[in-house]
Amino acid sequence: MSTTSRGSGPHVLRRLNASAVLTALRTGGPQRVADLMDRTGLTRPTVTQALTLLERAGWISPVHGTADVTAAPRKGRPAQLVSFRAGAGCLVGADVGPHKAIVMITDLIGAPLAELRVSTGSAGDGPELITLIADTVRAALARAGRTEDEVYAVCIGSPGIADPENRTFRLAPSIPGWASLPLDAELGRMFRCPVLVENDVNLSVLAERWQGVATDAATVLFVHWGSRIGAGLVVGGRLHRGVGGAAGEIGFIDLDETPPVVGGMGPLERVVGADAIGRLGGGAFPDSGAVLRAAADGDPAALTAIDEIAARFARGLAPALLVLDPELVVIGGGVSRGGPPLLAALERHLRPRTLVPPRLALSALGDRAGVLGAIRACLDNLEATLAASL
Amino acid sequence: MSTTSRGSGPHVLRRLNASAVLTALRTGGPQRVADLMDRTGLTRPTVTQALTLLERAGWISPVHGTADVTAAPRKGRPAQLVSFRAGAGCLVGADVGPHKAIVMITDLIGAPLAELRVSTGSAGDGPELITLIADTVRAALARAGRTEDEVYAVCIGSPGIADPENRTFRLAPSIPGWASLPLDAELGRMFRCPVLVENDVNLSVLAERWQGVATDAATVLFVHWGSRIGAGLVVGGRLHRGVGGAAGEIGFIDLDETPPVVGGMGPLERVVGADAIGRLGGGAFPDSGAVLRAAADGDPAALTAIDEIAARFARGLAPALLVLDPELVVIGGGVSRGGPPLLAALERHLRPRTLVPPRLALSALGDRAGVLGAIRACLDNLEATLAASL
Repeated sequence: MSTTSRGSGPHVLRRLNASAVLTALRTGGPQRVADLMDRTGLTRPTVTQALTLLERAGWISPVHGTADVTAAPRKGRPAQLVSFRAGAGCLVGADVGPHKAIVMITDLIGAPLAELRVSTGSAGDGPELITLIADTVRAALARAGRTEDEVYAVCIGSPGIADPENRTFRLAPSIPGWASLPLDAELGRMFRCPVLVENDVNLSVLAERWQGVATDAATVLFVHWGSRIGAGLVVGGRLHRGVGGAAGEIGFIDLDETPPVVGGMGPLERVVGADAIGRLGGGAFPDSGAVLRAAADGDPAALTAIDEIAARFARGLAPALLVLDPELVVIGGGVSRGGPPLLAALERHLRPRTLVPPRLALSALGDRAGVLGAIRACLDNLEATLAASL
Repeated sequence: MSTTSRGSGPHVLRRLNASAVLTALRTGGPQRVADLMDRTGLTRPTVTQALTLLERAGWISPVHGTADVTAAPRKGRPAQLVSFRAGAGCLVGADVGPHKAIVMITDLIGAPLAELRVSTGSAGDGPELITLIADTVRAALARAGRTEDEVYAVCIGSPGIADPENRTFRLAPSIPGWASLPLDAELGRMFRCPVLVENDVNLSVLAERWQGVATDAATVLFVHWGSRIGAGLVVGGRLHRGVGGAAGEIGFIDLDETPPVVGGMGPLERVVGADAIGRLGGGAFPDSGAVLRAAADGDPAALTAIDEIAARFARGLAPALLVLDPELVVIGGGVSRGGPPLLAALERHLRPRTLVPPRLALSALGDRAGVLGAIRACLDNLEATLAASL
């Protein structure tokens, strides 16, 4: 055991103050010392000291003219505006699915610089898919006018259980050859920065808290409703991954004593996933999209089909709500295009199954929830790195 | 907005250091300055300063002789031992159920001073029950040689959804007249200290983390399995109550399209609760206790009954495990007396229904889990108060 101070001296205070000023600058755009005093509650000398530290570290710059961001305003001249150097580097998010991948490049506060989509369906085996992702990242960086050396964090989202230590995914049956591939074989060589991996639905709940319908909610269940079904869970403001990274696997909830896994799919996703929806309506609709569109147009057969599927899903989802009593349930994924009629049917069938009326909302992020969440994970990583660097 | 410092000056540091020293003293028994330096990682002058502050506040005292706890050790004399004044006051925990109430008095580090049990079954309506609880608390304090003025925190646990602001319980059908009674009408008058209310199963999970089988687990689901069924949930080290205080209500999980509430009981508790167990075994057993005892003795009919009930419970519990992927599931409540055979049957039926093998353990706290959790809640409250008082 150490008998020296564990870091509660004045230098820790300086860091905390600098970190508070940095957060204010990262989230509030260009600001004056007085603005930062308001935002942080710190005194002028403390803010000035923090700005000196941040400028020395290269994280901030004056918006106009002079380099001395901490000089007191002179009479008749406006006070100096200071901003976080968001363009000093960039972040890379990627959402890799069985049909497509989306790659997004942003600056260091998450403002988009470029976005590319590629089809992954014909990418062949896992290593070919990694090469495709790496090529797409390179193309997106080129489009953003950035180089690999300027990247501060990369996050790859994908179905399956993420294994952050080995930078790989386990149990990802929907993408052939993907599970257990070491992503750093290719991507780790490209970048000297952290390469994060995370389950795509976990990323979606981060995105909803950042830019979606859940910005005010501390406990959120994001339900991805597509061909596959899974949930991402934020409890008390923090992503809950589960002890084995397997939290939120609600697609495997079994309502009817069916086999646990058929064709890689769990019991609940087999009976309420997009494929099951497509089979409803007495064969009158070619696929789930047609059912959902017809229901939106008021087609009675489609509305009956939607009600049936909502009733099934409510049976599977109710246990999760009874366990968690969440502030908000966000419905995303392709089936969420069913819109208000689907949401209303789900709410109607959930209500008698829960003690507290459920609060549901449709995701407005579409198929970009995963990649936006990947950027949010990069931002969280960057913020921790910044705070530690001061 | 304030332009003054938000409290990151040297006085905050002094408080944090004093708080760290206090925690070390509260959890480690009598210690010397050198021990505290080891435990906290703080320097001798910082520990000495913290001790001065704590002694002035009346929270610590020398174990022998001199009052100067911070004096440097003199040659040939042993260094002064200092201890937290655990006896400077006491805490009151109460677990109020439909059949009995347990009241426990402890000192300020949770060491038991007195414990009393009373039958509540014939207490009549709610106000009479409150009077009974108040009388029992008075008797327990007398037995501990304490007065009401010496109490630093009181916590009342009970079935139902706790409403801490109004110091009452909502939805507590198992105790007639109990719901919505303002507990501070009687108990608030008795004490000038905080009176906390909390769901009894939430308290049980706190107790398991404090003194039970879950001391090492950050994410724990405690399942109370008795006539009623409910769960308490700790996620990432923190009690998760749910937005409406209704998290963990797994007794209301519906497996078979049955009515949501019959006789105040939910679908799952109706088919796997103690009463349902008593009805199994073809009427060969008078009650659930007889079934469980016979199963422990290897009786084939009882073992078949236990297997049947475990299969049913696994169907209801699996969704909770799929959502949470907890580190540990603790089975408590009266039915947990079924012991290892019951636990093994539950694990066997859960395994094919979950993606990650469930980790189960039997509670060893018996019917004292709730009252121990009430004391833990008092300790948490006291610790926050102590930290704020420095």
